[in-house]
Amino acid sequence: MKYLLPLLLLFPLVSWTQDPHRHSRVTRFPDIPGYLSLSCDFHIHTVFSDGSVWPDIRVQEAVRDSLDAISLTEHLEYQPKKADIPNPDRNRSHEIASQLAKPYELLVVRGAEITRGMPPGHNNAIFIQDANKLMLNEPVPVFQEARRQGAFVFWNHPNWTAQRKDGIARMTELHKQLIADSLLHGIEVINDLTYSDEALQIALDYKLTIMGTSDIHGLVDWQFETEKGGHRPFTVIFARERTESAIREALFDRRTVALFQHTLVGREEWMLPLLHTSLRVRKASFIGTSSILEVELENLSDIPFLLLNSSGLTLHQHTGFIEAAARSITRIQVKTVDKGPVIDLPFLVLNAVVAPHRYALLPLKAQAED
Amino acid sequence: MKYLLPLLLLFPLVSWTQDPHRHSRVTRFPDIPGYLSLSCDFHIHTVFSDGSVWPDIRVQEAVRDSLDAISLTEHLEYQPKKADIPNPDRNRSHEIASQLAKPYELLVVRGAEITRGMPPGHNNAIFIQDANKLMLNEPVPVFQEARRQGAFVFWNHPNWTAQRKDGIARMTELHKQLIADSLLHGIEVINDLTYSDEALQIALDYKLTIMGTSDIHGLVDWQFETEKGGHRPFTVIFARERTESAIREALFDRRTVALFQHTLVGREEWMLPLLHTSLRVRKASFIGTSSILEVELENLSDIPFLLLNSSGLTLHQHTGFIEAAARSITRIQVKTVDKGPVIDLPFLVLNAVVAPHRYALLPLKAQAED
Amino acid sequence: MKYLLPLLLLFPLVSWTQDPHRHSRVTRFPDIPGYLSLSCDFHIHTVFSDGSVWPDIRVQEAVRDSLDAISLTEHLEYQPKKADIPNPDRNRSHEIASQLAKPYELLVVRGAEITRGMPPGHNNAIFIQDANKLMLNEPVPVFQEARRQGAFVFWNHPNWTAQRKDGIARMTELHKQLIADSLLHGIEVINDLTYSDEALQIALDYKLTIMGTSDIHGLVDWQFETEKGGHRPFTVIFARERTESAIREALFDRRTVALFQHTLVGREEWMLPLLHTSLRVRKASFIGTSSILEVELENLSDIPFLLLNSSGLTLHQHTGFIEAAARSITRIQVKTVDKGPVIDLPFLVLNAVVAPHRYALLPLKAQAED
Amino acid sequence: MKYLLPLLLLFPLVSWTQDPHRHSRVTRFPDIPGYLSLSCDFHIHTVFSDGSVWPDIRVQEAVRDSLDAISLTEHLEYQPKKADIPNPDRNRSHEIASQLAKPYELLVVRGAEITRGMPPGHNNAIFIQDANKLMLNEPVPVFQEARRQGAFVFWNHPNWTAQRKDGIARMTELHKQLIADSLLHGIEVINDLTYSDEALQIALDYKLTIMGTSDIHGLVDWQFETEKGGHRPFTVIFARERTESAIREALFDRRTVALFQHTLVGREEWMLPLLHTSLRVRKASFIGTSSILEVELENLSDIPFLLLNSSGLTLHQHTGFIEAAARSITRIQVKTVDKGPVIDLPFLVLNAVVAPHRYALLPLKAQAED
Repeated sequence: MKYLLPLLLLFPLVSWTQDPHRHSRVTRFPDIPGYLSLSCDFHIHTVFSDGSVWPDIRVQEAVRDSLDAISLTEHLEYQPKKADIPNPDRNRSHEIASQLAKPYELLVVRGAEITRGMPPGHNNAIFIQDANKLMLNEPVPVFQEARRQGAFVFWNHPNWTAQRKDGIARMTELHKQLIADSLLHGIEVINDLTYSDEALQIALDYKLTIMGTSDIHGLVDWQFETEKGGHRPFTVIFARERTESAIREALFDRRTVALFQHTLVGREEWMLPLLHTSLRVRKASFIGTSSILEVELENLSDIPFLLLNSSGLTLHQHTGFIEAAARSITRIQVKTVDKGPVIDLPFLVLNAVVAPHRYALLPLKAQAED
Repeated sequence: MKYLLPLLLLFPLVSWTQDPHRHSRVTRFPDIPGYLSLSCDFHIHTVFSDGSVWPDIRVQEAVRDSLDAISLTEHLEYQPKKADIPNPDRNRSHEIASQLAKPYELLVVRGAEITRGMPPGHNNAIFIQDANKLMLNEPVPVFQEARRQGAFVFWNHPNWTAQRKDGIARMTELHKQLIADSLLHGIEVINDLTYSDEALQIALDYKLTIMGTSDIHGLVDWQFETEKGGHRPFTVIFARERTESAIREALFDRRTVALFQHTLVGREEWMLPLLHTSLRVRKASFIGTSSILEVELENLSDIPFLLLNSSGLTLHQHTGFIEAAARSITRIQVKTVDKGPVIDLPFLVLNAVVAPHRYALLPLKAQAED
Repeated sequence: MKYLLPLLLLFPLVSWTQDPHRHSRVTRFPDIPGYLSLSCDFHIHTVFSDGSVWPDIRVQEAVRDSLDAISLTEHLEYQPKKADIPNPDRNRSHEIASQLAKPYELLVVRGAEITRGMPPGHNNAIFIQDANKLMLNEPVPVFQEARRQGAFVFWNHPNWTAQRKDGIARMTELHKQLIADSLLHGIEVINDLTYSDEALQIALDYKLTIMGTSDIHGLVDWQFETEKGGHRPFTVIFARERTESAIREALFDRRTVALFQHTLVGREEWMLPLLHTSLRVRKASFIGTSSILEVELENLSDIPFLLLNSSGLTLHQHTGFIEAAARSITRIQVKTVDKGPVIDLPFLVLNAVVAPHRYALLPLKAQAED
Repeated sequence: MKYLLPLLLLFPLVSWTQDPHRHSRVTRFPDIPGYLSLSCDFHIHTVFSDGSVWPDIRVQEAVRDSLDAISLTEHLEYQPKKADIPNPDRNRSHEIASQLAKPYELLVVRGAEITRGMPPGHNNAIFIQDANKLMLNEPVPVFQEARRQGAFVFWNHPNWTAQRKDGIARMTELHKQLIADSLLHGIEVINDLTYSDEALQIALDYKLTIMGTSDIHGLVDWQFETEKGGHRPFTVIFARERTESAIREALFDRRTVALFQHTLVGREEWMLPLLHTSLRVRKASFIGTSSILEVELENLSDIPFLLLNSSGLTLHQHTGFIEAAARSITRIQVKTVDKGPVIDLPFLVLNAVVAPHRYALLPLKAQAED
């Protein structure tokens, strides 16, 4: 939590989860073993394509959201403000933003949106060297040039109704070929206000990196209603360090969980570590001389977790559904009967999707204190 | 005020669900076909047994909570304030409260708590004629006298840890006999802050009326944290009219759903009508020329509904979990593909429990407008 | 919902002041006799000078703020984004915004900021015909050209520390000449986050129109913290109708009150009608058989009023300070002793400034109902 | 701030003013030089006279309000619940409460309300030894007995409309005699929801201790709307230590400030130290190279302060009125022109009343940092 670090140094005993000054729009997760949990939004527009703001606003929004990395991915081909902003340099908004980001610990990754009809539809190339060199007529050579530059490329909003009338993401022969040729590496399962079960299935079937992005054109505050507690969609990336190259490596290695509307979507192998580090049993103790175990669930993340008790044991103060509020401790009372001091407490996490219609099962354990 | 005028013209009257003055502690439900949905709390204490307030506070709390009926069920046998309040008349708190309730449309039902060790534990007799006549030594004759008076009797907190160390409600031979003899008719599945899956199973197995009560001794506001949006537990009773006799009849007929912490617990046959009248499809229309149907779910109740999409169809803006906020319209976008203008939209309602570990399945339907 | 029914019957229509959907950032006032009270912000920037957003955001901000009129007053001479937006047409941002405003009842007035060192400092010319014709070397000819075009011209932030190190607005010989030649007509007493007592005195001394503007460069929401209940500064203009020409006429006639941070600043002659239409005695009646008069003060505006009792009578439930909350009824109890059924109730309005260190005295009257 | 002490020990660097867990109903002030600032409510009823709750609720309310001392001052003569609570022992509620208060650092002072027609009206005797001995026919002997017991006695609600139809507190010959005979020592200037300018004048004229009390009969939360940020009225007493005898000594020495609705009422000699310790200049520094001094006003109390700039200097971001929010830092910018690095910053504090229609003038000073 970089922006809060100076504060934390001054107040070493106030833990992250209890920081009252934390703005509710900030949506962060604790690190997982071996990796930092970085919040990244790699699909953003400014006036340099069809967005409504100068790059400085994008930097400030990211700072307010406490993001670790962004990319301004202007449309290479779609330039509706050309009459007023004729500059043909497609690197321009990146350059402005990366200058403005210097006072902050915000990484600005060079990117561009390859904007075509379906197939291949829209695709973002990030970690490129020069957006201008991607200005080619035929689509496949653009992907090839992106690969030459070392880009990580992902398929944008495959469920976009302008290109898929029924909103259903569907694989195409061209996309299969791009994947086969290592020209396409990820897919947006979350874009703006939308989520696609079908895109998630494609990601799993074709081993694509799961991405979530804001695709913001207007203002983040308005589009995602931050005033009412909303937040922009983004991707949690598990990187070895807070550098561009570490994030790029993580993306190629598919170490991501996407997020929108306080809901996580990701591969089980990355979802479980993220859940384990976010929600833990803090303490458990028998109530009086009873066999009822009071368990303190501590949610260290900025989203609530929606849990269904899957332990087979019944609860004394809940039916089966439990909301573990963000940055809080939630107490549940488990009727252990004769199970002894150690019990299994698996929960189905209803806002943690690991496959279409499948939710993460978090296998917590509680041990009574002496 | 130009921008607001069209809104005012469209909604010339403030409907119940949109009333902004509605205190969040008020928790009401629309009526169901053929019955009024009455909010009733039939387990309450005052200084006349072991509570901390005079009956006037109980009346005011009920008015603030917009309840339809209450009963002050003082312990017949347990009188810790006897040194200061020696009055042996067990009808006294009822008489005070029923006088004070007159300016309001609040029914005050005469009741008493039969307070014994387990079995039979604690049991409330309501709709009695004279509490003093229940002051008998042996327990069974008390139940018999209650029946003579026409009482409806229910088993209080069968999961109470003072009487069940493991918090598990268990049937006893005495209770079986009371039920067989028509001396016991209901059971608290919800009491104060607790819920019991086992008590629910007993209710279903033995055809007992499902009850939820506050069992309040201190202040409702403090115990149930009304300031933070909490509410007291109570029972929704489906009565033909707002009278004592209609409520009594409904109780004997098991027409109830219990409520705590925004969670409903009841028999499926009464849960479904309550859900149907509380949550309905208000409107549905295809978005543009797409096959995506936007469905407006209108929640007319004072609790949110926690829904899991069980339609088999995928959604454009949700994974599978939907929170339909209280007194609000929630919009979902269903990818119908080629299903045509009428679709089935069943939802699992996670805060509507119909049996241990079983949630109500609400079979909504949506039809696209022309 | 029995307890609420009587309320609904009494108030069958939702009046403006009680509309719960009213966004708190909206800051409106009722009309005064003979004139509409129009909310206007005539000092705004976009990417076409040194602002950070495209004109569409300015239109949307104005719609969210429920403004009646705005003007995009780009700097004629200061063009820091010229490298990217080289268009020399100084009318361009106005043209974009006026197109985008068409679906709304928002007037977009053509304007420009004449940007010079002090004197004459910065001045806004609004209601011009062609901003490009104002691109002249010497300042006075610019003002002359503006007059030729029929412009209303006002002096911007005369207290700006970049031009006045001590923050004190001071008249200059050049400004006196501009005023004498009818080339300068108004002065900003409020600009962005600042207010100037000295500018107010200049306005009164030189018969200049009192102006308040946002001078927004970034986002209105961030600069004025709308999320926390803040609002942009603007000018309430009393116009005969909602047209550009009526607003222009009102400005030349000095019919304005400026507003920032829920504080009004204006000439007494326009402040008093605005206060009278915003805050009125709704009802007064003696309490029981006492001589204490309960007076209902109704605040029909979107700002609170901070009142000091100046009646000489003492109050039963207040010391002397009363806050009359926005869109609410505030009850005060006046000890009339033997004053009879009609009493004078003058209040000093501490957030209504009519001269440096001088607050409006609002001469309310209350008459007891029979 | 006793209840927070354990927390403060754990988090030594979180200052009191920034404690986020602080319940808004808690209304505390920092200590003044030489004295503790103790929050005391010495006019409270329970079911043992005409109140609606058992003494346990009064103890819990006081704990929630973080009070230092209370007194349960049951009416000696008025016993409307006598039929149910016939106990003639007027010390009874005190005894119950003082037992229940033991786990907390709450002092429960023995008291009683002498309840007569006017004159002498109602008067509270606190720090008595035995309430039963005050049960005498004639009023003056009751005061004499109270004095014999060492009581501090104050005149309750001299503005009560049941005894003063016009709500005007007026001195009587009997009261003059009681004062002359050292039988009456204080007067309620604040009682429940009311304030009396005339009672304040009597306090000043006759050297009576200024008192503010809740006179609570129902629930503190409801009567004073704690849910909406309200608080009970009480008296801040400046005592040498947190003991009954120190509080009693302070009362006889008139070291009090009364409080209701976030408004202080007291003698100037105690108001000013309280304001000085509550609101201070934390830091001041010139902005850039300008002569504008930014001054940080730190409000360490739980009430906001409503300030009118009385310095003669004008402000850069305020007209003249400043609200210094509770437990916050408020920044103001003072245009010092050529006043140098040290300036006088007197403020009129509109919610600090020191005499009828007279507000405290707080003579702050600011010195620019180097």
